[in-house]
Amino acid sequence: MYQALKERVLAANLKLPDYGLVTFTWGNVSEIDRERSVIAIKPSGVEYDVMTVNDIVVLDLNGNIIEGTLNPSSDTPTHLELYRAFPQLGGIVHTHSHFATVWAQAESDIPALGTTHADYFYGDIPCTRLLSKQEIAEQYEKNTGAVIIEEFQRRDLDPLAVPSVVVAGHGPFSWGKNGIDAVHNAVVLEEVASMAIATRTINSGVHIQRELSDKHYLRKHGANAYYGQR
Amino acid sequence: MYQALKERVLAANLKLPDYGLVTFTWGNVSEIDRERSVIAIKPSGVEYDVMTVNDIVVLDLNGNIIEGTLNPSSDTPTHLELYRAFPQLGGIVHTHSHFATVWAQAESDIPALGTTHADYFYGDIPCTRLLSKQEIAEQYEKNTGAVIIEEFQRRDLDPLAVPSVVVAGHGPFSWGKNGIDAVHNAVVLEEVASMAIATRTINSGVHIQRELSDKHYLRKHGANAYYGQR
Amino acid sequence: MYQALKERVLAANLKLPDYGLVTFTWGNVSEIDRERSVIAIKPSGVEYDVMTVNDIVVLDLNGNIIEGTLNPSSDTPTHLELYRAFPQLGGIVHTHSHFATVWAQAESDIPALGTTHADYFYGDIPCTRLLSKQEIAEQYEKNTGAVIIEEFQRRDLDPLAVPSVVVAGHGPFSWGKNGIDAVHNAVVLEEVASMAIATRTINSGVHIQRELSDKHYLRKHGANAYYGQR
Amino acid sequence: MYQALKERVLAANLKLPDYGLVTFTWGNVSEIDRERSVIAIKPSGVEYDVMTVNDIVVLDLNGNIIEGTLNPSSDTPTHLELYRAFPQLGGIVHTHSHFATVWAQAESDIPALGTTHADYFYGDIPCTRLLSKQEIAEQYEKNTGAVIIEEFQRRDLDPLAVPSVVVAGHGPFSWGKNGIDAVHNAVVLEEVASMAIATRTINSGVHIQRELSDKHYLRKHGANAYYGQR
Repeated sequence: MYQALKERVLAANLKLPDYGLVTFTWGNVSEIDRERSVIAIKPSGVEYDVMTVNDIVVLDLNGNIIEGTLNPSSDTPTHLELYRAFPQLGGIVHTHSHFATVWAQAESDIPALGTTHADYFYGDIPCTRLLSKQEIAEQYEKNTGAVIIEEFQRRDLDPLAVPSVVVAGHGPFSWGKNGIDAVHNAVVLEEVASMAIATRTINSGVHIQRELSDKHYLRKHGANAYYGQR
Repeated sequence: MYQALKERVLAANLKLPDYGLVTFTWGNVSEIDRERSVIAIKPSGVEYDVMTVNDIVVLDLNGNIIEGTLNPSSDTPTHLELYRAFPQLGGIVHTHSHFATVWAQAESDIPALGTTHADYFYGDIPCTRLLSKQEIAEQYEKNTGAVIIEEFQRRDLDPLAVPSVVVAGHGPFSWGKNGIDAVHNAVVLEEVASMAIATRTINSGVHIQRELSDKHYLRKHGANAYYGQR
Repeated sequence: MYQALKERVLAANLKLPDYGLVTFTWGNVSEIDRERSVIAIKPSGVEYDVMTVNDIVVLDLNGNIIEGTLNPSSDTPTHLELYRAFPQLGGIVHTHSHFATVWAQAESDIPALGTTHADYFYGDIPCTRLLSKQEIAEQYEKNTGAVIIEEFQRRDLDPLAVPSVVVAGHGPFSWGKNGIDAVHNAVVLEEVASMAIATRTINSGVHIQRELSDKHYLRKHGANAYYGQR
Repeated sequence: MYQALKERVLAANLKLPDYGLVTFTWGNVSEIDRERSVIAIKPSGVEYDVMTVNDIVVLDLNGNIIEGTLNPSSDTPTHLELYRAFPQLGGIVHTHSHFATVWAQAESDIPALGTTHADYFYGDIPCTRLLSKQEIAEQYEKNTGAVIIEEFQRRDLDPLAVPSVVVAGHGPFSWGKNGIDAVHNAVVLEEVASMAIATRTINSGVHIQRELSDKHYLRKHGANAYYGQR
């Protein structure tokens, strides 16, 4: 019944090792079917090279399993929280990809330093605040979603214009129109995270010009975009 | 009519992923036919693994499409500006290759620190000035070419003796006798950019001796060159 | 007689080049059969691509060769010292893997900076003290084991909760329930060692919250663990 | 007549791209036949993937071509100078391998920071002094050999106990009992050069204990060596 959704989610998950974004099982992709109000997500702790479409777990938006015999990713409550808060999202990916995780561990925003960043992210990529002891002790994964949402609301950010975040002390989440698009953004995030570290090593105070950032974002994503084949 | 030119341009573009210089579609190579006053260039936003010779776009030097049904790279006006200003150039490549882009983001010249650099580049690789708000707002891509030309003229540099530049906040352009030669120089640029970052980490003030730089450049490119099979 | 043990040890050793943890022959995995009081270990200085099951050496816990015609790894006395002191260990791996060795050379603990670390290691990964001249001169390899044991006892650490160490000036040892599990932990060690270097470059004073570290370790390894398929 | 020598030299040269030590044609291996007083070396500027045994050039110790139709590597006079000064050497390799070249560009010795280094190099790997203007202007490649020899004599080093050097502003040379052994040492050099950069980033003042360095070097290379199968 959810065969096509599950196949897309499997394919998106298998892109993670292809792009070098995961070690062992450290990542998961989900996709939402907004019409039927269900998500499909990777099972918890299953290796990518043995995963099949039947291992993908389908849940309703309250986290009840609709289809599948395995436990869903332990990060499922974070995905659900984000889908409920941001109706624009069609797919979400969480990894511990190397350089994005470094920024998360440094508890720092990833600064916008060049047009590679600006082509995909409209401004700095936010780092969340730390969770409180209480937020860690109870409903930790749900609260991880809540601090992401809080950060985007506090900064008044459109999640599709800044399609990634780093959770302080933890790692990145990316999203997009669907699962594959979310993974695409996770690849870009990793590359800009890596370049930002090296850039700040050479020139600690640099930041992209606001006008150049606007130009690159808008020539690709704005109303009068002229990048690509349209 | 432009079949051979288009095939050379396709081949040069396909070298970019082979050499690890591009993520997704972030790069483009062009080549000029000076006799017929046309250039051929990669189409905008097309993936390398599905690109065919028929996707390559042929334009005149005013940017009018002569052959091809796709939009040319959005960086085409930069390429055209460089071909018009520098009659020595036969091919141009633009990428967001990792370490060269780091120097662009740092808004810094890539200093000549060793003979690997000197074998290909006669002195530091310049970083352009930032574009003004006005230059970004109108004819941005053409003005990107213009600041490159301005930088080479201000420093009185021969573009074939320093066959690369980094555009501040953006990324590198390289060039050469033809498209493949431009890509070759882009590979060298990336390697020297990477080594320069690590070198400055160990020894922040170091720079190559002028005599050693001259020796290496001239034994390979000078009138009495003796490197290789001649 | 020890065929199954030797095959497991061969397979675990061959994982080392697969995971990029070794250059040439710089690594070794052993596994213990507690019932029969024997260990099996890689022979000294033999290349991975020519190693066969018959090359694996079986020894008793006093280091006497029971089976095999080659010299065992020169690090065998370190493995034996650890197996005797820590009855929880089923497998041990020693490598000179790049980033873990960097921390060993820096004579520094690998600080716990994020949940990637906390998912596998309960707190910082210790660096041993330097060996004395005397400890280096006599029974060096046995004393390498002794300083590891001393460090875990001094800090009151459970070796299965912190399944790695870096030996000052030398490199890492990891362990686990068996040889393959030890190699798995060595892969994680290398990844967290690498991320820790880059993290400290951006933010020199950062450390993971204690509560977040506990949460991640315990949701995976605690009595009420809910990560994976249980 | 020199077929076996040329085949060994070809094989050793082809190891350079396999080990990731070269970009394009930036490296060369030679081997000497002491009985017949000839060396064989890579031709200048020839790509590795088209090189055949007939391209290898055989020369006498004065640099006269004995066999072969191509120009020998432009670094041939450096190789010859080293073979004449150090009768222990059987093979020599020159590359611009990434991290060793970084130390050359930094004009700094590669400090001995751990046992990986000590297993192969008895103490720091020296960096030569800069060449004078005069030494660069005339017989540059021969003088490159001369400053290497000067450095080893000044420090009273045995070239087989410290089988590599970095030439200031240029890059590394390694050597060994034959061509393949020289390449082996070049791989180790690259790895220890890389680890030393990261180590000094974490702990700027660290150096290996003298006793630990001695122990590791001597257990592998000393009169009573017990590493490997002997």
